[in-house]
Amino acid sequence: MSLTSSSPAEAAKQAKTASHVLATLPTSARNDALTAIHAGLAAARDDILAANARDLEGARVAAEHGQLSQSLVSRLDLGKKGKWEDMLKGILDVRELEDPVGKVDLRTLLDDGLELTRVSCPIGVLLIIFEARPEVIANIASLAVKSGNAAILKGGKESTESFIAISKVISAALEKTKVPNNAIQLVTTRDVIPQLLELDQYIDLVVPRGSNELVRSIKSGTKIPVLGHADGLCSVFLEQSAEPKTAADVIVDSKTSYPAACNSLETLLVQESAIETTLPVVAEALIAKEVVLRCDPKTKSALASRLSSELSSKLQDAKDVDYDTEFLSLTLAVKAVSGIDEAISHINTHGSKHTDVILTSSSELAEQFMSSIDAAGVYWNSSTRFADGMRYGFGTEVGISTNMIHSRGPVGLEGLTIYKYKLRGQGHVTAVYGEGDGKKPFKHQKLDP
Amino acid sequence: MSLTSSSPAEAAKQAKTASHVLATLPTSARNDALTAIHAGLAAARDDILAANARDLEGARVAAEHGQLSQSLVSRLDLGKKGKWEDMLKGILDVRELEDPVGKVDLRTLLDDGLELTRVSCPIGVLLIIFEARPEVIANIASLAVKSGNAAILKGGKESTESFIAISKVISAALEKTKVPNNAIQLVTTRDVIPQLLELDQYIDLVVPRGSNELVRSIKSGTKIPVLGHADGLCSVFLEQSAEPKTAADVIVDSKTSYPAACNSLETLLVQESAIETTLPVVAEALIAKEVVLRCDPKTKSALASRLSSELSSKLQDAKDVDYDTEFLSLTLAVKAVSGIDEAISHINTHGSKHTDVILTSSSELAEQFMSSIDAAGVYWNSSTRFADGMRYGFGTEVGISTNMIHSRGPVGLEGLTIYKYKLRGQGHVTAVYGEGDGKKPFKHQKLDP
Repeated sequence: MSLTSSSPAEAAKQAKTASHVLATLPTSARNDALTAIHAGLAAARDDILAANARDLEGARVAAEHGQLSQSLVSRLDLGKKGKWEDMLKGILDVRELEDPVGKVDLRTLLDDGLELTRVSCPIGVLLIIFEARPEVIANIASLAVKSGNAAILKGGKESTESFIAISKVISAALEKTKVPNNAIQLVTTRDVIPQLLELDQYIDLVVPRGSNELVRSIKSGTKIPVLGHADGLCSVFLEQSAEPKTAADVIVDSKTSYPAACNSLETLLVQESAIETTLPVVAEALIAKEVVLRCDPKTKSALASRLSSELSSKLQDAKDVDYDTEFLSLTLAVKAVSGIDEAISHINTHGSKHTDVILTSSSELAEQFMSSIDAAGVYWNSSTRFADGMRYGFGTEVGISTNMIHSRGPVGLEGLTIYKYKLRGQGHVTAVYGEGDGKKPFKHQKLDP
Repeated sequence: MSLTSSSPAEAAKQAKTASHVLATLPTSARNDALTAIHAGLAAARDDILAANARDLEGARVAAEHGQLSQSLVSRLDLGKKGKWEDMLKGILDVRELEDPVGKVDLRTLLDDGLELTRVSCPIGVLLIIFEARPEVIANIASLAVKSGNAAILKGGKESTESFIAISKVISAALEKTKVPNNAIQLVTTRDVIPQLLELDQYIDLVVPRGSNELVRSIKSGTKIPVLGHADGLCSVFLEQSAEPKTAADVIVDSKTSYPAACNSLETLLVQESAIETTLPVVAEALIAKEVVLRCDPKTKSALASRLSSELSSKLQDAKDVDYDTEFLSLTLAVKAVSGIDEAISHINTHGSKHTDVILTSSSELAEQFMSSIDAAGVYWNSSTRFADGMRYGFGTEVGISTNMIHSRGPVGLEGLTIYKYKLRGQGHVTAVYGEGDGKKPFKHQKLDP
């Protein structure tokens, strides 16, 4: 790792060159580097926490002056119970994952002695832009090294001291490994994000880790592909045949288990025929968890007629904009729809292609919903909150993508790889193949990868 | 197919809506649509060729005034021997390909009754921008329908009459099928490309089919992902152990079998120790095929000492820029390198990540080269010209990508798909999973897809 004070372009160019070496290292060399990073950080605990305490002190002062939010101060704190240990364990967890590089997923004998294989390989240079959380630096450095990618890390200014301390340790640790020194670049100069986002000749993929605003501003300011999502406007369609208690459980979990998460529920669509039967059960459960329901006229009047006046008094009127809002809080937009077609059309128009759910007893309607909804995750009778790399069994998560190409949904290490075609011949030329006189056909014999 | 005179934004919005229906159609419905397109075109042969003749007449006049190149006029001609038949056959060929939609490549039991699958699905809306060749419209409409994608087609002005004739037929043919009418939009209004490239809310992928300049200008003008390549600067590294006759065969095929193709050879790097032994054999074979060699001083003087004075007199001096030039003609840049490391470094710096070749008898060096070169195709002892979807056995080719994400190299129908995660549960919620008291772990049991 190089703690660079050089220009962004120079850092990116060095990362590109290093990426070509890193891409050729065997699994063992990349895993050894993770072992070294882990040992280095473990040994430097006190220094790093002291640096983090300085960041924290600065942030607390800024928060007192209203320049920073308390939640940001909290995210900054590496000394919080379990955070340091989780960070270290995360590095070893990544080391233990299956190597995503060098996997062969296609093998074809084009002709005798001419074999084509498709082999996974690193993408090249990642630009990781993140906000406060300093543990992300160790996490991302691990993911990059494991997947054979060089990375340029750009952190938020609030955590500069922590970043410098952590990166010095990682840098020293990598010195003793085969990973090139320039493979991980930490950019500490301020206000360089626009410059970095111009460097599409060196940087292959941007991974933003932070708020919707961060992601949105990055996406609008670069031609480099961005892996991630700006919005997580997840919806549930409550169909009339859904079992009420199950529906309440799933909706409460989707909305309340972590309201600030991108995979939390924001819009509840209810089939009209269920607004006086199933919806009141769901609404009571939500209100008991302090969820504020913003209802359209139909669902509001149906609920008013079924709920106690105390509960009814908590209902709010929805405005149009509520159905396009990612609240990230305990507010939920509720709307009646005539049936599955209107639900699908609503979600495909207002949703953010993240994760959408149908609650129904009908497998036929569930399959129709899952086939028709254009989203990274389409669920039947399960919580939106399952949209997560760890829960999917990927071992780690680079982020959740709502892109329409490359990777979609929770992205594991696989999303940091692409492939190359290797062709091994014995002097084969193309001119002899084709149709007609004296030409020969290809064999195109599929082989077991 | 809709022959739209509406605004680009309206066309794109309609295509998006249609894409949601198209994505749910079964294989049979999409194949039936291809059958209908084929039959419609076959029946309308005379009308379409008459329209094409009008385009051709206009283009010939423009060419006489120097406003159009002869090669463009030639590409425009649908009446050329075999072209019409190839176009029709291509539609049936695409129909016969394996359906790229609905393939399950991951299945995991997260917990009892909670199953995750990853299923391939269409990307959504493609924007296809092409230049003169009118047969591309049928080809691309077939690929889009087969892969379940809506498409907006924008052709060059020289082929407007042909496009309108073909698209009217396709439109009428699709009327009788389940493919929504707006799924294929033909935009005939002029100068709308910049507007279309702004519509990232509706358009998911741009596929340019045309010159390097077209691709370059599109890539620089949009945030929508572009599938393709601007440059095809392919290199061969001739290592000292390569068998001279084999080397000559592969290099001649790479350079001369179709010099204007993106997968043709542009730079020949020769190990210094071979410039007086192997290179002269190769050079004689190239010069016999009228290739002009632009040599650095070392290779030029080595060749001058070995070749006849007649052949030597044809050698040219290379300038630096020649090693960054895609000639697309019978000119080849030649340069001596000390060995494989310099060759790798040169190609990773000057190449275009398309297709690069090592000619060697050493499998160890071949593997080192293929692992170190950052390109979509890395070949050992075979011609660069194998970089082609048909030759790879993909049945069809959408284009050749030098992107670092999504699809790389020759792209078949698979490159027009992405995936979604389907999760089928029975009221599962996330709050019960985790570590610690009363929490349960996931099973994460891999199932056979």
